[in-house]
Formats: sequence, structure tokens, C-alpha cells
Amino acid sequence: MDQENSSTFKHQISARIRLVTDPNNDIPHLHKLITQMANYHNLTEYLTVTETSLSNTLFKSPPFHSFTALILEVSPNPFPITPHKDLSFNPIIKNNFNLKAPVLDPQSNTFRSENDVYVAGHVLVFPSYNGFFEKPGLNMDQIFVRKCYRGLGFGKMLFSAVASVAASMGMGMVDWLVADWNEESIKFYEKMGAHCVSDYRLYKLYGEKLQQCANISG
Amino acid sequence: MDQENSSTFKHQISARIRLVTDPNNDIPHLHKLITQMANYHNLTEYLTVTETSLSNTLFKSPPFHSFTALILEVSPNPFPITPHKDLSFNPIIKNNFNLKAPVLDPQSNTFRSENDVYVAGHVLVFPSYNGFFEKPGLNMDQIFVRKCYRGLGFGKMLFSAVASVAASMGMGMVDWLVADWNEESIKFYEKMGAHCVSDYRLYKLYGEKLQQCANISG
Repeated sequence: MDQENSSTFKHQISARIRLVTDPNNDIPHLHKLITQMANYHNLTEYLTVTETSLSNTLFKSPPFHSFTALILEVSPNPFPITPHKDLSFNPIIKNNFNLKAPVLDPQSNTFRSENDVYVAGHVLVFPSYNGFFEKPGLNMDQIFVRKCYRGLGFGKMLFSAVASVAASMGMGMVDWLVADWNEESIKFYEKMGAHCVSDYRLYKLYGEKLQQCANISG
Repeated sequence: MDQENSSTFKHQISARIRLVTDPNNDIPHLHKLITQMANYHNLTEYLTVTETSLSNTLFKSPPFHSFTALILEVSPNPFPITPHKDLSFNPIIKNNFNLKAPVLDPQSNTFRSENDVYVAGHVLVFPSYNGFFEKPGLNMDQIFVRKCYRGLGFGKMLFSAVASVAASMGMGMVDWLVADWNEESIKFYEKMGAHCVSDYRLYKLYGEKLQQCANISG
């Protein structure tokens, strides 16, 4: 539908990972990315997140001390290397890298964040704890790159950004769940040095059952 | 070894679940409980938690906004029903319930928290987020009852305390992982109305691999 506004990256592309901070500009993009990810996982029927719920959940504490989002942006032009401003997360920039083949983004209009800058992916994290370990961890809840930007190293860039946050905060690990049919992701994570701890089952208590169980405590 | 100081509950027992708040008194008990749980799971070789790391991790934010511990205490005497003090967690008390058989606690001396009050179990929780959902959840990292107090309903009391916190905070769910060999726990959780989401694998990136991956971000 945005075909007439599509952008083509022919020779070079620049990328930036930065903190989601702007409820008015970033949140609608993030919501669309999450919806695309749910669609990819065939989970749209379970999707209850809204732009409002994202705004209400994301900015409640300093970044990475609670639910936090990073977005990946791409541009045909290099991103300005801004000096370190003692931010919680200094943007990660990779300027002017060469493309093997042109990239056509049919949704560039939908995902435009500023002039000639387009949102291409995201990652959601929050602190996790395991009582057996000395140090907390960083849970990676979602990692996603839009279809037309896959295979260019952006997943690795997002994943290593998460590892870098965890390491710089003195955390002991990054942990996450992978759908067991998602072979491509599993291959990627194992290449990145991740260990599978397979002998666990994920349980959830929700809805009426949660309320019933809560009522036992009176 | 505490045999000479062991306590026996013959007819009645009273129970209280309260927030872990006192680094000097509660933390050593909590550390011993975690060690017993690691032993039960055959994971003592991975145990790196210390009393100091627990103190440093548990009291960083208001309860339930980050890593939080509740402990279960038992006593032959009823616990005072203290009026609501606008605490983050009002203690849950179940006084004077009848025992089918006497309970002998061979470690009562090790786990004494005050006169005739003994620490019997714990639960560790922290807020969890799933980007697909409107509401955050409460992750239950550990739930444990000391051996001599099992089968008396204390697991259910701890679990429903967690559900009650999640519900009262407007959270959408409680979620947790269960070792797949732990049939007894699985049976218990399913009886409590929990759903198994089995098609996920848990991955972790830690140690040297975490550092290597972090270095990619430069």
C-alpha cells in the first residue's frame, strides 16, 4: 500500500540503535513492529498490547531497570555521531556499510521516523533474576527485524547491543525463550555462543484462574 | 546436627507469609533456603548467590517492582494479626490449623527467626513483561518449602500469595519455569489452574561468550 512511497537502498546503508524515548513518535512505530512480530509467530489472536499500554509500561523507571525498548533505524545517509551525553544508552551507530544487493522497503512511509530515517527493527528487554546466581540478568523478550532488512547483520547488531547493556551493567547473563520451531533463530543464537537450557517448561497462570488462586489468600 | 534443638509441632501450627526486609536476620535464612533448593534440584555446583549479593539485589526498589522475596514462617503459637499499615505486602496469616500428624523440625535451631517462630519456606518473584500483552506479569523464580513442612498446604499458601500480589497490582499473569522431571510440582501447578506453554526453549548467554558478544557493539 505504501508502494508509491517505497524507498530503495542501492549501495550503502547506515544503521543506528537507540533507546525508545518519544511516546508520540516512537511508540506507534514500536506497536507496528510488535504487531508484525506477532504475525510472524502466528500469535495475533493473543495480542492485547496497545500504544497506550506500551507508553504506560516503558517509561516507569530508568532504562533497563524495568521494561525497556530499543529501536533500530536505517538511513541512506550517515547518522551523526553525537558525543556521549551520559545517557543510559549511547546510540550504537554503523555508518555507510556496503550492500551486496539493493534493499527495497515497501513500507518506508509507514516506518519513517524522520527525514530519510526508517524504523527497521526492535528489541524489548527487562531485568531478570535467578536466585541461584550472584548477579541479575537481562531478559530479552523480543528481537525483530523487518522482513526487507533481514540477512544484513541487523539481528546480530541488536543482539550484541543487548549483550553490551548486560555486560556494562555488571549483569551475569542475557536470557530469553525461543519458539522450538524457529530453527533459523536457534541457529543464529547458537552461533552467537548461547547455551540452550532445554529441560524447563514455561507455565502461566492468568485470567479467571489467577483471580481464583489470588482469592485463596483472601 | 540440631537434633537436640529440634522442635515438634504436635497438634496445631500457625503460618505467616511476610516480606523479607531485614538484611541481618532474614537474609541468612533466605540464603540457607536457596541452598537447600539448589540441593533439591542438584544444582549446587552452579550456586553463586551470597548473602551479600542477596542484600544488594533485593532492596533496590519498592517491593515487587524488582527482585523480591517472601518468607514463610511457622509457629506453635498464633501470629498477631497486625492492623494494615499500608505496607506493600500485608502479611498473610493462617493461625491454629490442625495437624494430621506431628511435625518434627530437625533444623529448628538453624531456622529460628524469633522466639518459637521458624522459617519454613520462601518464594522469589520479579516483574516480567511480554510485549504482546497489555499488562505486565509477575515471574516466580523460586518457590520452596522445607522438607519437614511439605504436604501441609504451605506450597499452595505461598503460590496463592504470589497470585494475590499479581492480581492486586493489576498484572495480567504469573509465569515461571518448571524442570520437566519435577512431576510433583507440575501436578500441583496444573491443579492450581496453570497452563503449560511448552513449545519454547530457554537460552542463556553468559561468561566469556557474553563479553565477546558485547564487544561486537564496541
